[in-house]
Amino acid sequence: MRIDGRQNNELRPIQITRHYLKYAEGSVLIEVGNTKVLCAATIEEKVPPFLKGMGEGWVTAEYSLLPRSTQTRNVREAAKGKQTGRTHEIQRLIGRALRGVVDLKALGERTIWIDCDVIQADGGTRTASVTGAFIALVDAVNSIYTDESKPFPVRDFLAAISVGLVDEEARLDLCYEEDSRAIVDMNVVMTGNGQMVEVQGTGEKRPFTKEQLAQMLSIGEQGVAAIIEYQKDVLGPLAWKVGREGCRN
Amino acid sequence: MRIDGRQNNELRPIQITRHYLKYAEGSVLIEVGNTKVLCAATIEEKVPPFLKGMGEGWVTAEYSLLPRSTQTRNVREAAKGKQTGRTHEIQRLIGRALRGVVDLKALGERTIWIDCDVIQADGGTRTASVTGAFIALVDAVNSIYTDESKPFPVRDFLAAISVGLVDEEARLDLCYEEDSRAIVDMNVVMTGNGQMVEVQGTGEKRPFTKEQLAQMLSIGEQGVAAIIEYQKDVLGPLAWKVGREGCRN
Amino acid sequence: MRIDGRQNNELRPIQITRHYLKYAEGSVLIEVGNTKVLCAATIEEKVPPFLKGMGEGWVTAEYSLLPRSTQTRNVREAAKGKQTGRTHEIQRLIGRALRGVVDLKALGERTIWIDCDVIQADGGTRTASVTGAFIALVDAVNSIYTDESKPFPVRDFLAAISVGLVDEEARLDLCYEEDSRAIVDMNVVMTGNGQMVEVQGTGEKRPFTKEQLAQMLSIGEQGVAAIIEYQKDVLGPLAWKVGREGCRN
Amino acid sequence: MRIDGRQNNELRPIQITRHYLKYAEGSVLIEVGNTKVLCAATIEEKVPPFLKGMGEGWVTAEYSLLPRSTQTRNVREAAKGKQTGRTHEIQRLIGRALRGVVDLKALGERTIWIDCDVIQADGGTRTASVTGAFIALVDAVNSIYTDESKPFPVRDFLAAISVGLVDEEARLDLCYEEDSRAIVDMNVVMTGNGQMVEVQGTGEKRPFTKEQLAQMLSIGEQGVAAIIEYQKDVLGPLAWKVGREGCRN
Amino acid sequence: MRIDGRQNNELRPIQITRHYLKYAEGSVLIEVGNTKVLCAATIEEKVPPFLKGMGEGWVTAEYSLLPRSTQTRNVREAAKGKQTGRTHEIQRLIGRALRGVVDLKALGERTIWIDCDVIQADGGTRTASVTGAFIALVDAVNSIYTDESKPFPVRDFLAAISVGLVDEEARLDLCYEEDSRAIVDMNVVMTGNGQMVEVQGTGEKRPFTKEQLAQMLSIGEQGVAAIIEYQKDVLGPLAWKVGREGCRN
Amino acid sequence: MRIDGRQNNELRPIQITRHYLKYAEGSVLIEVGNTKVLCAATIEEKVPPFLKGMGEGWVTAEYSLLPRSTQTRNVREAAKGKQTGRTHEIQRLIGRALRGVVDLKALGERTIWIDCDVIQADGGTRTASVTGAFIALVDAVNSIYTDESKPFPVRDFLAAISVGLVDEEARLDLCYEEDSRAIVDMNVVMTGNGQMVEVQGTGEKRPFTKEQLAQMLSIGEQGVAAIIEYQKDVLGPLAWKVGREGCRN
Repeated sequence: MRIDGRQNNELRPIQITRHYLKYAEGSVLIEVGNTKVLCAATIEEKVPPFLKGMGEGWVTAEYSLLPRSTQTRNVREAAKGKQTGRTHEIQRLIGRALRGVVDLKALGERTIWIDCDVIQADGGTRTASVTGAFIALVDAVNSIYTDESKPFPVRDFLAAISVGLVDEEARLDLCYEEDSRAIVDMNVVMTGNGQMVEVQGTGEKRPFTKEQLAQMLSIGEQGVAAIIEYQKDVLGPLAWKVGREGCRN
Repeated sequence: MRIDGRQNNELRPIQITRHYLKYAEGSVLIEVGNTKVLCAATIEEKVPPFLKGMGEGWVTAEYSLLPRSTQTRNVREAAKGKQTGRTHEIQRLIGRALRGVVDLKALGERTIWIDCDVIQADGGTRTASVTGAFIALVDAVNSIYTDESKPFPVRDFLAAISVGLVDEEARLDLCYEEDSRAIVDMNVVMTGNGQMVEVQGTGEKRPFTKEQLAQMLSIGEQGVAAIIEYQKDVLGPLAWKVGREGCRN
Repeated sequence: MRIDGRQNNELRPIQITRHYLKYAEGSVLIEVGNTKVLCAATIEEKVPPFLKGMGEGWVTAEYSLLPRSTQTRNVREAAKGKQTGRTHEIQRLIGRALRGVVDLKALGERTIWIDCDVIQADGGTRTASVTGAFIALVDAVNSIYTDESKPFPVRDFLAAISVGLVDEEARLDLCYEEDSRAIVDMNVVMTGNGQMVEVQGTGEKRPFTKEQLAQMLSIGEQGVAAIIEYQKDVLGPLAWKVGREGCRN
Repeated sequence: MRIDGRQNNELRPIQITRHYLKYAEGSVLIEVGNTKVLCAATIEEKVPPFLKGMGEGWVTAEYSLLPRSTQTRNVREAAKGKQTGRTHEIQRLIGRALRGVVDLKALGERTIWIDCDVIQADGGTRTASVTGAFIALVDAVNSIYTDESKPFPVRDFLAAISVGLVDEEARLDLCYEEDSRAIVDMNVVMTGNGQMVEVQGTGEKRPFTKEQLAQMLSIGEQGVAAIIEYQKDVLGPLAWKVGREGCRN
Repeated sequence: MRIDGRQNNELRPIQITRHYLKYAEGSVLIEVGNTKVLCAATIEEKVPPFLKGMGEGWVTAEYSLLPRSTQTRNVREAAKGKQTGRTHEIQRLIGRALRGVVDLKALGERTIWIDCDVIQADGGTRTASVTGAFIALVDAVNSIYTDESKPFPVRDFLAAISVGLVDEEARLDLCYEEDSRAIVDMNVVMTGNGQMVEVQGTGEKRPFTKEQLAQMLSIGEQGVAAIIEYQKDVLGPLAWKVGREGCRN
Repeated sequence: MRIDGRQNNELRPIQITRHYLKYAEGSVLIEVGNTKVLCAATIEEKVPPFLKGMGEGWVTAEYSLLPRSTQTRNVREAAKGKQTGRTHEIQRLIGRALRGVVDLKALGERTIWIDCDVIQADGGTRTASVTGAFIALVDAVNSIYTDESKPFPVRDFLAAISVGLVDEEARLDLCYEEDSRAIVDMNVVMTGNGQMVEVQGTGEKRPFTKEQLAQMLSIGEQGVAAIIEYQKDVLGPLAWKVGREGCRN
């Protein structure tokens, strides 16, 4: 029995509020249970040095926990003067995952900055960041998508969810209390056509078997599929643009 | 005529949502027009080194703009590895202002950390931070205030507002558009009994006269008084504790 | 009775030595009682990125306490790897104050760097910095002022002084001992024609009334006027250039 | 056909030289093809603050590329003043993986520092680091393992390998040239009893299917098993201690 | 013929003003030609961690160029957030040189901090720093030297001078203009009894012969001897304490 | 009698392995007794800003101790976020010494980066770095030396050795144990024609006499001459290019 009464393969309530910020090209507040992340997408009309002149764009992400998003206050990284290893790991994951469904050539020489700022952390902040950032990204890309004869630069839907092995059972979408007890912690990032973009499973307390991996992947896959259905509702007519050509790679 | 149709001495709509965060001892979302700041107050059971063993507490503040709170994205300070001079200046102001109404001895050897994170910036973020942080502070202090025979460690109400000289007229509560055109920019922090805790006026574009200063102080005073009335409503019965002994210094 | 026998509205002895450094375009040693600050002005033939191509100049300031300018040694900021919040706050004030009397358009696309290094600190280092930096600035501006048919880029005199509420009395030009006991601490920056450029009053220990504010402003105003008289003596014939057109804004 | 003539499921030649350094409690040079990593394990008789007094130990890792380990010189992180996100991500992976087979309670209040310094980088530096660090760790742990009646604090063997999808084929142990062309890049960390400790698969250029994941896992599993056989040879009689109790969790 | 008319073995005018600062335990302004360095010595009643409990003291130095001590403004190290390699090299030299004549055991568990801040730089700032810091050190040590039956913790005089090979001639005490043309640049630190504490010669533009080295050492030795005579005058009766036991090692 | 049975003027066994790294333009592993340093030379087709457009090149060095090169682990500078003063001092010495024999004009507008990474430290790491880096430099320069009618940009051989005063005797090539007991520590960098490029002698524990200096220089000179003979063997036919024109400055 889970602490909040959910089934093992049951997601927490999820809610995405689009256009949450006034200035950003795309922005959402995503709430997954008590986890709340503000995701903003900014279009910048230039690319990092290593891409200059190559005719393609870039997507990069930054992630931060607000100091009091957590149970005990965590020191502000700007005050410490550096980002933690955890922050680096997470923001690299978010950027990588989003690039997996963006057609960087169609984007042109532009950078999309994704900012994921965690307002409240109750487990699953990195997967909520990916899921929310995807919607912000679509809105931002749409703001510069003027020539409908060209492919829409976002090729497929993308969402992420955590899965874990808790009390010998594979469980979907762990809250903080479950996460801290989990034997194995896994994050699954998948696309609208059911393919994987990133799979990360870690048995910090104990190794895990192939069967357990398969089981976790399976409920993760169901979870992502459900979230992508919700994303489509949230995007409304705009969903059609993303879906139009499928994942053409 | 102001850009949003207000009178010169008219505040923007203000709204404070208490208990905005699940874990913090005190937290509010304050909205002043389009400016939105998340203020959290954390109780830490120790004091900085310079106060150790002296039997009194401390209040300190940190301030940050989320990268996309502004019209164009501002670089994340944690990524740059240092806080800007502007951030330092503002967070020192917030801490100083709050300490002006806190009875540090009554607080005991505790630090209250105030985190002001700007979600959306449309002028007046530092004064909104002071006004919102005050409510978060009262809630946090109340969470440790167990012996009602002792004075409540917050001695008086506190709020802040900006005033400026725009188009030769003194105006209350500038939005970003007015702020960037203002000849003189002023911030007024006052208490419930009408005294001043901090007054800062700057004529970066041009000096100003004593008469202009007096005029700005006067509408600033009205503005703060109105905000404090709203703060009392927001705090409800808890307002009585703050008001009980007035400002006893 | 003040610790050094002064009247409440009496300045400490002030002395400004021009051309203190061999290489700087302008430089002074300013001594106010035991406070000694070395102010240097450097002309750089370019502007910061945000002003490039806009045909106007910039004035910016840096401030530092030498490690043993203070009673106990303070850690060298270069060794720590960052400047304190206090340093940021002060150097922003100095830059802002000077820009208040400089005609940035007349300056052309140049930056004037003001370096204020405190040799000895006995209260009032930020106001002494403003007062001394003004003279260094005038000398530096004069070194590039070749076409007398154009307006001199410094439009008016500028000086600053501290005022405080100590033992219930408003006092001018606090030394360190008074400053650390002051209930309210105020800095006033004014021009030669008696207008204000910056007013900052803080009641960290206790709020203050409008009457107290008026009283402090009044003796601050007298103090600045006296200092500006001294500045004119110090500048000699060069004072005429600054005064020629008054404050034309 | 692979660039170096290997079969898709063939490892590059691997060589581990134990006791490579004179001072470290454990150290190896691991060579996997042209990739060379120096792994050192240091025993420190204390734990990080968050574990103080809890009676258990910690294993943590640091990773660095020597500036000229790569084709073009990469800037020295110590000179830049910060570690890259890639470095953070890798050293977190190494520490996590090793902790997966260490009995932290049996270790007692000690920290084992793992330093992985890449002398030459030709793909697979993170997996070579895990594989080599494991041997250094066993030697270091053995240096403090005096009471044979207690369990040896390393519970099972551990090795890692990369797998990738290149030219539509799953390939084992990618060299740099293959790695930069790979559609999917995967790292597999497994134990001596065939369980997984960490699985990370990323489709940065394109998503991947469950069948491809299974295929990559399968050859990764074979690869790790072969490496662990080699590790046993390298450790000689010491291998028995690790194997004695199997993975008892 | 030298630019300022000196003989090859002639020093620039030197002047040391003791008790230059009000708060420091020892402080001097040293002027050597146009080079001016402010040296302060601070006594701290503790030692760095590596000496804790060993019953001896430490002497350490910090060095800095004020931004406008040089012909063109040099960026403030505190603003950049790090000290340059040159600064590190010089402050290590100063600390090492002074430790060469201090009886660290007689000092007891104290640290003497030496701050050398260059007000104006016209060549020879590091050697002027050593020469001036020595006087500040003696004053500071004297302030804690209460038991005259014990040896005075400074065992001998110490001064430094630069020598260089310019236009094929060995020259003493190079000014900036000569320094920048010198083929070989040398710094000599010697004691009152004519022994060497530090010798550093560098032929960055060209190597040099043993004969040239001997020639430079010879005029350096004369220069230091003359400076030490001046130091004795400056210290007056206090010189006797330093000289009392000679260099007893 | 020395700890390892050597005569006072006897070097430790020295071995230089050329082409140690696959990618660098020049690289060696130098072993001097138990001291092992990896030296890499990289050609970069640009110069630092201060040399732009002046038609000459630059040589610069970076130095680092691997964390476990030493008896107790030393903290990784990249993790701390800054290089120590010792590192700065050493890398400046290496760069300066190499520039002493390089014809920067003949190099053209190129920078040669020298990376010296200490694998194992048993005394003399800075002198081993100079000696090894010289060979890497020659190989790197040779890789771009195509027009044999022009002078080879390396004008003479260069090597370095440490000398010290231990137990009242001058000794060559100190190992760590001797180094930590030495009264005087000296480093000598000399060229193939017997001239000096850098001489640094420090009497941190006690000053030293001119006779002692001469004695140390004398055995240092012999040591360097022997090492240069070995360097010639190591370079083989390439030695002829360096030697062809001698040191022509």
